[in-house]
This record gives sequence, structure tokens and C-alpha cells, in this order.
Amino acid sequence: MRKFTLDTIFRTRLQHRPGQLARVTAAIAEEGALIGDITTVQIGESYTLRDITVETGDEGHTARVADRLRALEGVELIHLVDRVFDVHRGGKLHSHSRVPLEQLDDLRKIYTPGVARVAQAIEKSPELAWEYTGLGNSVGIYTNGTRVLGLGNIGVLASLPVMEGKAVLYDRFVKISATPILVDTSDPREFIETVVRTSRSFGAIHLEDIRTPECFVIEQELKARLQKPVMHDDQQGTATAALAGILNACKLTGLDLRTARLGQIGLGAAGSAIATLAIQYGAKQVLVTDTSPEAMKRLEAQGAHPTDLATLMREADIVVATTGRAGLIKPELVRKGQVIFALSNPAPEISPDQARDAGAAFAADGRSINNALAFPGIFKGVLTARSRQITTQMFLEAAEAIAGMADEGELVPSALNPRVHETVTQLVIRIAKAAGLENTARL
Amino acid sequence: MRKFTLDTIFRTRLQHRPGQLARVTAAIAEEGALIGDITTVQIGESYTLRDITVETGDEGHTARVADRLRALEGVELIHLVDRVFDVHRGGKLHSHSRVPLEQLDDLRKIYTPGVARVAQAIEKSPELAWEYTGLGNSVGIYTNGTRVLGLGNIGVLASLPVMEGKAVLYDRFVKISATPILVDTSDPREFIETVVRTSRSFGAIHLEDIRTPECFVIEQELKARLQKPVMHDDQQGTATAALAGILNACKLTGLDLRTARLGQIGLGAAGSAIATLAIQYGAKQVLVTDTSPEAMKRLEAQGAHPTDLATLMREADIVVATTGRAGLIKPELVRKGQVIFALSNPAPEISPDQARDAGAAFAADGRSINNALAFPGIFKGVLTARSRQITTQMFLEAAEAIAGMADEGELVPSALNPRVHETVTQLVIRIAKAAGLENTARL
Repeated sequence: MRKFTLDTIFRTRLQHRPGQLARVTAAIAEEGALIGDITTVQIGESYTLRDITVETGDEGHTARVADRLRALEGVELIHLVDRVFDVHRGGKLHSHSRVPLEQLDDLRKIYTPGVARVAQAIEKSPELAWEYTGLGNSVGIYTNGTRVLGLGNIGVLASLPVMEGKAVLYDRFVKISATPILVDTSDPREFIETVVRTSRSFGAIHLEDIRTPECFVIEQELKARLQKPVMHDDQQGTATAALAGILNACKLTGLDLRTARLGQIGLGAAGSAIATLAIQYGAKQVLVTDTSPEAMKRLEAQGAHPTDLATLMREADIVVATTGRAGLIKPELVRKGQVIFALSNPAPEISPDQARDAGAAFAADGRSINNALAFPGIFKGVLTARSRQITTQMFLEAAEAIAGMADEGELVPSALNPRVHETVTQLVIRIAKAAGLENTARL
Repeated sequence: MRKFTLDTIFRTRLQHRPGQLARVTAAIAEEGALIGDITTVQIGESYTLRDITVETGDEGHTARVADRLRALEGVELIHLVDRVFDVHRGGKLHSHSRVPLEQLDDLRKIYTPGVARVAQAIEKSPELAWEYTGLGNSVGIYTNGTRVLGLGNIGVLASLPVMEGKAVLYDRFVKISATPILVDTSDPREFIETVVRTSRSFGAIHLEDIRTPECFVIEQELKARLQKPVMHDDQQGTATAALAGILNACKLTGLDLRTARLGQIGLGAAGSAIATLAIQYGAKQVLVTDTSPEAMKRLEAQGAHPTDLATLMREADIVVATTGRAGLIKPELVRKGQVIFALSNPAPEISPDQARDAGAAFAADGRSINNALAFPGIFKGVLTARSRQITTQMFLEAAEAIAGMADEGELVPSALNPRVHETVTQLVIRIAKAAGLENTARL
């Protein structure tokens, strides 16, 4: 996994002289940056125009590389394009028509007067909306922007690129039509009312990037009030992907999650859900710790054992940390033979190298777990089965199936592997059908 | 304009014998139905499989044609497909990714970790959302389903095919990404709160199919509270298209709307907006009538003159009716030389033939006016100009431009003519820029 996250295209005009490109690449390397593609844009009489993709750690690093190139003789730096920003230009989504509209006859079918017959048929038999609208394949991605990625409460507007990204994954991985809905309130009651009132726009509700503890009441109340699938991806989506990784780590180290002691450090959305899902999987001893007594009480009610960090590190065979606090786990706390998942992004509670040096049998950080593994197939499955809910059994079987598709020695498979989403979809359909979850009530 | 709205594909197996197809087509004709395409699906040893598209007035009519064909010797009716329902299958929209997602590198750009930089940039400089999200080209189509087409209060779920249809027009005509949002409440305060709270999801707000009088307060309050374009299409969109038709009818009959007497019968969303826009255009004498005294008072405040139906019919040079009451205008009420727009769908207040027979100089019904002429270009224009509002001048100039693009002798051009939407877009951009309406405030 690469560490540099900033890709910049340097458009350069290089005078024709022997060794010119070599000087440029050497200068980039000396600044500690990496070189991606080099493409020739134009070859002139006395110069060549080239686009050189340079990977750096941050914007300051990019600026240093640029200064270095500008100082080279015979090199002109024409402009820089940040490839991440470039791909976001104009947004990452577009709501497209699925039907032809070339002639008057088409217009009369999809709009008035034809559409009136479809509307009337649905008024009379609401279940026809599954067939004659997009409801059977649509997800609303709702957020209030209060806890976006590792960035915190950045507000709904700034969260939009993240929500669009989620929608892209839905389209590309499972052909679901997903729409970001930004709900501009930090009041959980207002948030709930807004989702309920607009929920008929979508076949299922995906909650995203909502801070704790509000996310718990929001998710629970929406599940109770709506007859359609609701999932908070930062809880169950992340927990499903994490459980897949934990199961494979157990396999690699000869542990059994059911009998091993699991320690969960940090009881935010992800940590609470991981501990809960582990208990639902059958883990008998789950230790938890958090700075919030309420969070510990909440997990105790689920069957976990609250404790302090030192005790947890001493007693747990498997440690999962989701605190957002870089370096929280000092190497001296690591017990020999422990399995350690320090999942906080961008900086883990302890680096895998440090953990292994301190005696861990196995160590991973957040880059090894990707919740894009779970949510696409889960939602595709419940929508296809017209299920009115998402169940714990779906998360558990999805985690096991995802674990089973990892390559030898890897914790989880790639989210780009289409078999992952297809497999999760199918098992979710099977579970929904077996449990008789088809929505025959209010759509 | 065809009168039959129901297209059905009859799949038939016709035995090979001379004159077989002629017998089938004659039978259809004798039932008063029209024949569209006839395509050969398969030619067998002793039969031919053909798809025959049959246009009828309603489902009973289709059933009668089917019975008639079943009675023919050597004809087997295999199945019927309702082409309107067929084109609606699975919904008419899909939210597609606009960006590549083939490899891990793509994932790291559009999702974590890359997207975090874009989110942070927008948090710091909110105006960047115009560039790096879909906001600059997106419209939310909000409805509460209380007054859908001519169908009335059919509820939000049944309105979804209509809203999807609107979104299809946005995509096809002006490449705007539009999303139906069903707000499940008939309380205007709840509706307003829901739109305000979710408004940051979209660059502009399109209100659709909301009953009177709630639609007026909803539109006015949203315009006051949001720094982004808001328009109730059933009001201003319809009024703009209607004004275009009225201007051309004036031209054809030698009237000047500014000095002629305009009579508006029915002050619902469309009628109120038509009367108001005519006044804003410069019409000096606008008579209005409605069964609701409140509606008349509202229009009086805009400068119109309330009166009764008989007086209006006696005094108006141009009559526009939007009452939803078929046959309301008796032929004896028509004054010689009057221009009459009886716009209610599906059945007008007086048919154009009856009105002309009664002495009208010009008569048209609702099929001649299509509000799909106005809203796509208006919204594309304000979004492109990043305008914080839609102004009366935009409606007026759009109506004149649309009128100017009608073919000789026609009231309005076809909504399928791309020049219409391009022209409206450009004039709206020009007006927004000249008026300094660019949104530099809260996005």
C-alpha cells in the first residue's frame, strides 16, 4: 500500500538535450517523491511537452518538487494539476435517464399523458412501485456531516464529496442508484423526522458519518419506524468488514474468536458495532474500554465487560482499537502473541511494525480493512429480496463469506473484486427469503 | 395530436394463409383502434409471429380489440404488453458514476484517502463546492403528492413516476442531474422545514404538484429562506409556457396583450401564475374569477380585477381557463372574435372546435401548451450563472423567446427542439449576470 496520497500532474516543457528527462526524474527522486506515468503531450522543434505524474505526501512536498524543477535549466513548469481535485470536478454523480426520449411518442409515454396511468396504478396497488419506479434499486445516503471520515464535524456541505464517493461505489459495484441527502441539523430528532418524511423517495436508507452517541438513537428509531432497510455504515458496515479481517487473523494465528478474549478499545460507532457483532458471532469474552462511562454501560448491556486500557491489553488475545488517537498503544502494553488491529485513520494507535517488534503475533492498521467490502452487497441483497430489514445474520454470514474470499495470507479480499459483492448479495437474498422478510406492508 | 394514449403491443401468431394480416388489421380498425408498428418476430413453417402495436382510448377498448382478434380463425393472441408500463419498468432514472473506478488508485482518489482533501478544501472555502461536487448542476424535485397532474391528492408514492419523468426531461433536455424527493406530509410547515434541512443536497429546488393554497406559502417562504433558485413549476413554469402561447395567439389575431382585456378563469397554481405573469408582462386589464374568494383577493392584490364568469366571458378579449372543470364554458358564453385557451387536462372547459363554432377567433386546449418548454432552460441558466434566485424577468424573456421559436401558425415550438432549451438557458444566464445575482453567500 502506497503512503503518498497526493498525485499531481506536472506539465513540463523540456528542451531537447541529452539526459534532460533523467535530470528531471533524478530531481524528483531527490525530493523524496515518487514518479507515476510520464506521457508525451507534444514534440516540438526544440522541446518536448510531457505530463509527469508525481506522488507526494502533502501540498508542501509538491511545492518543494515544483521549486526544484523550476530551478533546472531548460525545464519550464507550465502548470500543475492535482489529480484528486481533477477527478472531482463537476461532481462524481449524474442522475441519468434510463428511457429513450427522441420523439413525441416517447414524451407521451414517460410524461403526460402516459405517466398518469402508471401513477394511478400505483395509487391503487402500492406494491407496483417496486416494478414501475426506481424504488426497488435505490438507496438514500443520509448524513448530517457531524463525523466525516477522520475529519470530524465538518458540516454537510463539505461532506458531499464523501457521500458522492459512496454513491459511486454503489453504482460501480452493484448497480444501485444512490443519492446523497445532506440533512443540515445536528439535532437527532430533526434528523430522524427528516429521514422519515423523505424516506419514501428511496428503497433503502444508508446512514453515514453521524457522530456518537446520536447515531445510535437515530439508527434505532429509524429501524423501528420504517418498514425498509436501514443501516449505519460506520457501525455495521465497518463491523462486518472488520469481523472478516479478525476471522482471518484468528485463522492465521490459530485462535478461535468464540473462545479467545477480544478487547475493543474505543466505543464510537465502529468500535461499539465491532464489539457487538463479535458477541453476536459467539465471542464469549469481549472486554471493552472507552473514556465515556455511558459508552461502556451501553456495551455492558450487550454482554461486554468494561475495563481499563491496561487490563484490556494484558488480558485480550485479540485487540481492536478504533479511538482516533494516534500512538495510544505504547509498545510496552503489547503482550507477546497478541493479535492487534489498530484501525484509526490516518494514523493508527500503534503501527503494525511497532506492534510486531513489541511481540504481537499479528498486526494490521486501518488500511487493511475497507468497509466498501460490505455495504454494496448487503443493500443490493435486501433490495433484490424486497426485504424490510437488514439482520444480524446477514452481517455475520457476509463477514464469513468476505473472509473466505481473501487471498492466502491476506486479511480481506479487494473491494474491486466483483465476486465479493455478488457473493454478499446472494447470501443476503437467501437469508431474507428464508426469514420471510419481504415487505408486503407500506412501501 | 393523437387522442389515444394507450399503446399496447399484441404478440400474435398468424397462420400462413392469404389475406391473414389484412383480416387482423381490418378487425382492429373496425373496433376503432389505431395501428402503429407491425414487426415480424419470427417466421415459422406454418405461421408468422408478429408484434402489432395498437393504440386505444382506454383499457376496456384494448380488451375489446383483444377479444375480437381472439375470435379470428388462425390467429392466436400470445400476450399483450402495455408500452407505457413497459417503459417504466425498473424506474426511469439511475444515479451513475461520472468517474472511472477500475483500480485501487481510482478508489483512493474518489474515496478515502483522497476525498478527504476535497472535503477539507470545501470546509475551508465553501464556494469550491460549485466546482468539486455536483451542486452546480443538480436539482431536487420536491413534492408532497397533493396535486399530481390532473389526478389530485394521490400521495407521494404514486407521484414518483411523474417526478422521475420530470427528472428524465432535465437529463435529456439540459443535462441537469435531477432527483425526486418525496416529502410525506400535507402540512406546509413540515414540508418547508424538510426542504430547508435537505436543500444543501442540491444546487436548486424545483417544487412540483403541491396543492393550493399551500403551494403559495411554501414557495414564498422557501424563496425567502434559501439563497438558491426555487421555482414551483406548476406556477411559473406553466405560466411561462402559457404566456408564450398567448403572445403567439395575440399575434395571430392582431391583439396586443398590453392593451387587450385578459380573462383568467380558475385561480389555482397555474391560473394565479398566468394572471400574475400577464400583469408583470404589462397587461393593463386582467379579469379573474374563481370559486374561492381568498384566491380572488390574492390576485386583486397583484392588480387583477375580480369578477364573475359571465362578466369575464363578456368583457375579455383573451380567455384562459385552468379550472379542471370539463365543459365549464358553454358555447353561448363565447363572444365573437375571442381568443380562448381552455387548458384543463384531460378534458378542456370547452373544446377548440366548439369554441370556434361559437365564434372564437382562435381556440386551443391544454395539449397545445407544454411546461416542459420552460423549466429545463430556466434551471440550467440559473445553475450555470450560479444565480441565487429566479426572477420575473427570466420568465418574461423566456416566454417571448419561446414564442419566437414557434413554427409559422403554431402557438409554441416542440419541447424536443434543443434550440428552445439552449436559448432559454442563455437568456437566463445573461439576465442573472446583468443583475449581479451570483451566489456568493451560503451554498
